[in-house]
Amino acid sequence: MQNKKLKILHDRLICSGISVSVAESCTGGLLSGLLTSLPGSSGYFRLGVVTYSDSAKTRLLKIPEKMIKQEGAVSAYTAQKMSSSARALASSGISAAITGIAGPSGARPGKPVGTVFISVSTAQRTICRRFLFRGTRSYIRKQSAEKAIEMLIASLHSAKCARS
Amino acid sequence: MQNKKLKILHDRLICSGISVSVAESCTGGLLSGLLTSLPGSSGYFRLGVVTYSDSAKTRLLKIPEKMIKQEGAVSAYTAQKMSSSARALASSGISAAITGIAGPSGARPGKPVGTVFISVSTAQRTICRRFLFRGTRSYIRKQSAEKAIEMLIASLHSAKCARS
Repeated sequence: MQNKKLKILHDRLICSGISVSVAESCTGGLLSGLLTSLPGSSGYFRLGVVTYSDSAKTRLLKIPEKMIKQEGAVSAYTAQKMSSSARALASSGISAAITGIAGPSGARPGKPVGTVFISVSTAQRTICRRFLFRGTRSYIRKQSAEKAIEMLIASLHSAKCARS
Repeated sequence: MQNKKLKILHDRLICSGISVSVAESCTGGLLSGLLTSLPGSSGYFRLGVVTYSDSAKTRLLKIPEKMIKQEGAVSAYTAQKMSSSARALASSGISAAITGIAGPSGARPGKPVGTVFISVSTAQRTICRRFLFRGTRSYIRKQSAEKAIEMLIASLHSAKCARS
Protein backbone atom coordinates (compact mmCIF):
# COMPACT_ATOMS: atom_id res chain seq x y z
CA MET A 1 0.00 0.00 0.00
CA GLN A 2 2.85 2.32 0.92
CA ASN A 3 4.47 1.83 -2.45
CA LYS A 4 1.24 2.54 -4.30
CA LYS A 5 0.71 5.82 -2.46
CA LEU A 6 4.33 6.77 -2.92
CA LYS A 7 4.02 6.12 -6.65
CA ILE A 8 0.90 8.30 -6.79
CA LEU A 9 2.75 11.13 -5.04
CA HIS A 10 5.81 10.60 -7.25
CA ASP A 11 3.72 10.83 -10.42
CA ARG A 12 1.88 13.89 -9.17
CA LEU A 13 5.08 15.75 -8.26
CA ILE A 14 6.73 14.86 -11.57
CA CYS A 15 3.65 15.81 -13.54
CA SER A 16 3.02 19.11 -11.76
CA GLY A 17 6.66 20.16 -11.61
CA ILE A 18 6.21 21.01 -7.93
CA SER A 19 9.23 20.52 -5.66
CA VAL A 20 9.02 19.16 -2.14
CA SER A 21 10.88 19.58 1.14
CA VAL A 22 10.54 17.90 4.49
CA ALA A 23 11.14 18.65 8.17
CA GLU A 24 11.03 15.70 10.53
CA SER A 25 11.34 15.13 14.21
CA CYS A 26 10.05 11.78 15.52
CA THR A 27 10.26 10.05 12.13
CA GLY A 28 13.94 10.94 12.00
CA GLY A 29 14.38 10.88 8.24
CA LEU A 30 11.96 8.11 7.29
CA LEU A 31 9.78 10.43 5.23
CA SER A 32 12.78 11.85 3.37
CA GLY A 33 13.98 8.29 2.85
CA LEU A 34 10.66 7.31 1.28
CA LEU A 35 10.42 10.45 -0.86
CA THR A 36 13.87 9.75 -2.30
CA SER A 37 13.41 6.02 -2.76
CA LEU A 38 12.07 6.08 -6.31
CA PRO A 39 14.36 6.74 -9.28
CA GLY A 40 13.72 10.23 -10.58
CA SER A 41 12.98 11.66 -7.15
CA SER A 42 15.87 14.09 -7.57
CA GLY A 43 13.53 15.85 -9.98
CA TYR A 44 11.33 17.07 -7.13
CA PHE A 45 13.00 16.44 -3.78
CA ARG A 46 14.82 19.58 -2.66
CA LEU A 47 15.70 19.24 0.99
CA GLY A 48 15.02 17.25 4.11
CA VAL A 49 15.92 18.25 7.64
CA VAL A 50 15.78 16.04 10.69
CA THR A 51 15.47 18.55 13.49
CA TYR A 52 15.37 16.07 16.31
CA SER A 53 16.47 18.42 19.06
CA ASP A 54 14.77 21.67 20.05
CA SER A 55 18.00 23.56 19.36
CA ALA A 56 18.02 22.23 15.78
CA LYS A 57 14.45 23.45 15.34
CA THR A 58 15.51 26.87 16.55
CA ARG A 59 18.81 27.07 14.75
CA LEU A 60 17.81 25.66 11.39
CA LEU A 61 14.11 26.37 11.13
CA LYS A 62 14.14 29.64 13.08
CA ILE A 63 11.39 28.55 15.44
CA PRO A 64 11.71 30.70 18.56
CA GLU A 65 12.93 28.68 21.55
CA LYS A 66 10.43 30.50 23.73
CA MET A 67 7.54 29.39 21.52
CA ILE A 68 8.71 25.77 21.46
CA LYS A 69 8.77 25.83 25.26
CA GLN A 70 5.36 27.49 25.42
CA GLU A 71 3.55 25.40 22.78
CA GLY A 72 5.63 22.24 23.04
CA ALA A 73 7.96 20.58 20.55
CA VAL A 74 5.06 18.25 19.82
CA SER A 75 2.29 20.67 18.92
CA ALA A 76 0.34 22.06 15.99
CA TYR A 77 2.27 25.30 16.31
CA THR A 78 5.65 23.61 15.99
CA ALA A 79 4.53 21.29 13.18
CA GLN A 80 3.23 24.23 11.15
CA LYS A 81 6.33 26.30 11.76
CA MET A 82 8.48 23.32 10.75
CA SER A 83 6.66 22.84 7.44
CA SER A 84 6.51 26.52 6.51
CA SER A 85 10.15 27.06 7.46
CA ALA A 86 11.30 24.00 5.50
CA ARG A 87 9.42 25.26 2.47
CA ALA A 88 11.06 28.68 2.77
CA LEU A 89 14.51 27.20 3.42
CA ALA A 90 14.32 24.98 0.35
CA SER A 91 12.28 27.35 -1.83
CA SER A 92 10.09 24.35 -2.60
CA GLY A 93 6.51 24.38 -3.79
CA ILE A 94 5.23 22.17 -1.00
CA SER A 95 6.55 20.78 2.25
CA ALA A 96 5.59 18.35 4.97
CA ALA A 97 6.56 18.28 8.63
CA ILE A 98 6.16 15.65 11.33
CA THR A 99 6.60 16.04 15.07
CA GLY A 100 5.39 13.53 17.60
CA ILE A 101 6.07 11.10 20.39
CA ALA A 102 7.21 7.76 18.99
CA GLY A 103 7.90 6.34 22.45
CA PRO A 104 8.39 4.26 24.37
CA SER A 105 9.06 7.23 26.69
CA GLY A 106 8.25 10.91 26.19
CA ALA A 107 4.53 10.90 26.99
CA ARG A 108 3.20 14.11 28.57
CA PRO A 109 -0.13 15.10 30.09
CA GLY A 110 -2.64 15.17 27.24
CA LYS A 111 -0.02 13.86 24.83
CA PRO A 112 0.35 10.10 25.11
CA VAL A 113 2.88 8.06 23.13
CA GLY A 114 1.67 7.97 19.53
CA THR A 115 0.58 11.62 19.47
CA VAL A 116 1.80 13.03 16.17
CA PHE A 117 1.21 16.37 14.45
CA ILE A 118 1.64 16.46 10.68
CA SER A 119 1.63 19.68 8.71
CA VAL A 120 1.66 20.38 4.98
CA SER A 121 2.54 23.81 3.68
CA THR A 122 2.07 25.42 0.28
CA ALA A 123 2.26 29.02 -0.89
CA GLN A 124 -1.49 29.25 -0.32
CA ARG A 125 -1.88 27.67 3.10
CA THR A 126 -0.43 25.63 5.91
CA ILE A 127 -2.57 22.86 7.37
CA CYS A 128 -2.02 20.58 10.34
CA ARG A 129 -3.65 17.40 11.60
CA ARG A 130 -3.28 15.66 14.92
CA PHE A 131 -3.09 11.85 15.08
CA LEU A 132 -2.91 9.22 17.77
CA PHE A 133 -1.12 6.19 16.40
CA ARG A 134 -0.85 2.93 18.29
CA GLY A 135 1.85 0.31 18.25
CA THR A 136 5.59 0.10 18.64
CA ARG A 137 8.01 2.99 18.17
CA SER A 138 8.85 1.62 14.73
CA TYR A 139 5.21 1.27 13.73
CA ILE A 140 4.28 4.75 14.97
CA ARG A 141 7.12 6.20 12.88
CA LYS A 142 6.02 4.27 9.79
CA GLN A 143 2.37 5.27 10.17
CA SER A 144 3.39 8.92 10.58
CA ALA A 145 5.45 8.91 7.38
CA GLU A 146 2.65 7.18 5.48
CA LYS A 147 0.06 9.67 6.69
CA ALA A 148 2.29 12.56 5.63
CA ILE A 149 2.45 11.06 2.14
CA GLU A 150 -1.36 10.88 2.08
CA MET A 151 -1.60 14.52 3.16
CA LEU A 152 0.86 15.59 0.48
CA ILE A 153 -1.18 13.73 -2.15
CA ALA A 154 -4.38 15.39 -0.91
CA SER A 155 -2.77 18.84 -1.00
CA LEU A 156 -1.62 18.26 -4.56
CA HIS A 157 -5.06 17.08 -5.63
CA SER A 158 -5.84 20.21 -7.57
CA ALA A 159 -2.31 20.76 -8.86
CA LYS A 160 -2.33 21.13 -12.60
CA CYS A 161 -0.17 18.90 -14.69
CA ALA A 162 2.55 20.93 -16.36
CA ARG A 163 3.09 18.08 -18.80
CA SER A 164 -0.01 17.70 -20.89
CA MET B 1 23.74 -7.53 11.57
CA GLN B 2 22.60 -3.97 10.97
CA ASN B 3 20.83 -3.92 14.30
CA LYS B 4 23.89 -5.22 16.12
CA LYS B 5 26.12 -2.52 14.66
CA LEU B 6 23.52 0.12 15.36
CA LYS B 7 23.32 -1.03 18.96
CA ILE B 8 27.12 -0.85 19.26
CA LEU B 9 27.08 2.71 17.92
CA HIS B 10 24.12 3.63 20.15
CA ASP B 11 25.92 2.34 23.26
CA ARG B 12 29.14 4.09 22.31
CA LEU B 13 27.42 7.44 21.75
CA ILE B 14 25.43 7.18 24.97
CA CYS B 15 28.48 6.12 26.94
CA SER B 16 30.81 8.79 25.55
CA GLY B 17 28.27 11.59 25.65
CA ILE B 18 29.22 12.51 22.08
CA SER B 19 26.47 13.95 19.87
CA VAL B 20 26.05 13.11 16.21
CA SER B 21 24.80 14.85 13.08
CA VAL B 22 24.33 13.65 9.54
CA ALA B 23 24.33 15.03 5.99
CA GLU B 24 22.97 12.77 3.29
CA SER B 25 22.53 12.90 -0.41
CA CYS B 26 21.91 9.55 -2.17
CA THR B 27 20.71 7.81 0.99
CA GLY B 28 18.04 10.47 1.35
CA GLY B 29 17.50 10.19 5.10
CA LEU B 30 18.09 6.46 5.63
CA LEU B 31 21.09 7.03 7.88
CA SER B 32 19.22 9.59 10.00
CA GLY B 33 16.31 7.15 10.12
CA LEU B 34 18.57 4.40 11.44
CA LEU B 35 20.34 6.67 13.93
CA THR B 36 16.99 7.73 15.42
CA SER B 37 15.40 4.29 15.40
CA LEU B 38 16.46 3.20 18.87
CA PRO B 39 14.76 4.60 21.98
CA GLY B 40 17.07 7.07 23.67
CA SER B 41 18.59 8.29 20.40
CA SER B 42 17.39 11.80 21.21
CA GLY B 43 20.20 11.77 23.76
CA TYR B 44 22.82 11.99 21.00
CA PHE B 45 21.18 12.72 17.63
CA ARG B 46 21.32 16.46 16.99
CA LEU B 47 20.53 17.07 13.34
CA GLY B 48 20.17 15.42 9.98
CA VAL B 49 20.05 17.14 6.61
CA VAL B 50 19.11 15.57 3.33
CA THR B 51 20.79 17.85 0.83
CA TYR B 52 19.66 16.05 -2.26
CA SER B 53 20.07 18.93 -4.65
CA ASP B 54 23.25 20.90 -5.31
CA SER B 55 21.47 24.09 -4.30
CA ALA B 56 20.63 22.57 -0.90
CA LYS B 57 24.29 21.67 -0.43
CA THR B 58 25.23 25.25 -1.19
CA ARG B 59 22.46 26.94 0.73
CA LEU B 60 22.45 24.83 3.86
CA LEU B 61 25.96 23.45 4.08
CA LYS B 62 27.70 26.45 2.53
CA ILE B 63 29.57 24.37 -0.03
CA PRO B 64 30.53 26.74 -2.86
CA GLU B 65 28.54 26.03 -6.03
CA LYS B 66 31.71 26.51 -8.05
CA MET B 67 33.51 23.78 -6.10
CA ILE B 68 30.61 21.35 -6.43
CA LYS B 69 30.73 21.86 -10.19
CA GLN B 70 34.48 21.50 -10.26
CA GLU B 71 34.85 18.48 -7.95
CA GLY B 72 31.43 16.93 -8.52
CA ALA B 73 28.49 16.47 -6.16
CA VAL B 74 29.71 12.89 -5.82
CA SER B 75 33.31 13.37 -4.73
CA ALA B 76 35.59 13.16 -1.73
CA TYR B 77 35.66 16.96 -1.59
CA THR B 78 31.87 17.27 -1.36
CA ALA B 79 31.51 14.40 1.10
CA GLN B 80 34.09 15.95 3.43
CA LYS B 81 32.55 19.38 3.17
CA MET B 82 29.14 17.88 3.90
CA SER B 83 30.32 16.14 7.05
CA SER B 84 32.35 19.04 8.41
CA SER B 85 29.55 21.52 7.67
CA ALA B 86 26.91 19.31 9.28
CA ARG B 87 29.06 19.03 12.38
CA ALA B 88 29.48 22.80 12.53
CA LEU B 89 25.79 23.44 11.84
CA ALA B 90 24.68 21.11 14.61
CA SER B 91 27.58 21.76 16.98
CA SER B 92 27.85 18.01 17.32
CA GLY B 93 30.86 16.01 18.38
CA ILE B 94 30.89 13.80 15.31
CA SER B 95 29.14 13.71 11.96
CA ALA B 96 28.79 11.48 8.94
CA ALA B 97 28.04 12.37 5.33
CA ILE B 98 27.11 10.27 2.34
CA THR B 99 27.06 11.28 -1.32
CA GLY B 100 26.87 8.83 -4.18
CA ILE B 101 25.12 7.47 -7.22
CA ALA B 102 22.35 5.08 -6.19
CA GLY B 103 21.13 4.68 -9.75
CA PRO B 104 19.69 3.40 -11.92
CA SER B 105 20.76 6.53 -13.83
CA GLY B 106 23.37 9.16 -12.92
CA ALA B 107 26.55 7.28 -13.85
CA ARG B 108 29.40 9.47 -15.08
CA PRO B 109 32.81 8.74 -16.58
CA GLY B 110 34.89 7.13 -13.83
CA LYS B 111 31.91 7.12 -11.49
CA PRO B 112 29.62 4.18 -12.20
CA VAL B 113 26.32 3.57 -10.40
CA GLY B 114 27.18 2.42 -6.88
CA THR B 115 30.03 4.93 -6.42
CA VAL B 116 29.61 6.36 -2.93
CA PHE B 117 31.81 8.65 -0.83
CA ILE B 118 31.35 8.50 2.92
CA SER B 119 32.99 10.98 5.26
CA VAL B 120 33.19 11.14 9.04
CA SER B 121 34.19 14.34 10.76
CA THR B 122 35.32 15.04 14.32
CA ALA B 123 37.00 18.04 15.92
CA GLN B 124 40.35 16.34 15.26
CA ARG B 125 39.97 15.21 11.67
CA THR B 126 37.76 14.57 8.68
CA ILE B 127 38.18 11.30 6.83
CA CYS B 128 36.61 10.03 3.63
CA ARG B 129 36.37 6.63 1.95
CA ARG B 130 35.25 5.76 -1.55
CA PHE B 131 33.11 2.68 -2.16
CA LEU B 132 31.68 0.87 -5.13
CA PHE B 133 28.51 -0.91 -4.08
CA ARG B 134 26.63 -3.30 -6.33
CA GLY B 135 22.96 -4.10 -6.53
CA THR B 136 19.69 -2.25 -6.80
CA ARG B 137 19.13 1.39 -5.90
CA SER B 138 17.58 0.29 -2.63
CA TYR B 139 20.45 -2.06 -1.80
CA ILE B 140 23.11 0.53 -2.65
CA ARG B 141 21.39 3.00 -0.32
CA LYS B 142 21.21 0.42 2.49
CA GLN B 143 24.84 -0.60 2.12
CA SER B 144 25.91 3.05 2.18
CA ALA B 145 24.05 3.75 5.43
CA GLU B 146 25.45 0.60 7.00
CA LYS B 147 29.01 1.47 6.00
CA ALA B 148 28.58 4.96 7.49
CA ILE B 149 27.56 3.36 10.77
CA GLU B 150 30.69 1.20 10.69
CA MET B 151 32.84 4.26 10.03
CA LEU B 152 31.20 6.13 12.92
CA ILE B 153 31.89 3.20 15.22
CA ALA B 154 35.51 3.08 14.09
CA SER B 155 35.95 6.81 14.65
CA LEU B 156 34.54 6.49 18.14
CA HIS B 157 36.82 3.58 18.94
CA SER B 158 39.06 5.58 21.22
CA ALA B 159 36.30 7.73 22.69
CA LYS B 160 36.38 7.60 26.44
CA CYS B 161 33.30 6.60 28.34
CA ALA B 162 31.99 9.53 30.34
CA ARG B 163 29.99 7.11 32.45
CA SER B 164 32.38 4.95 34.39
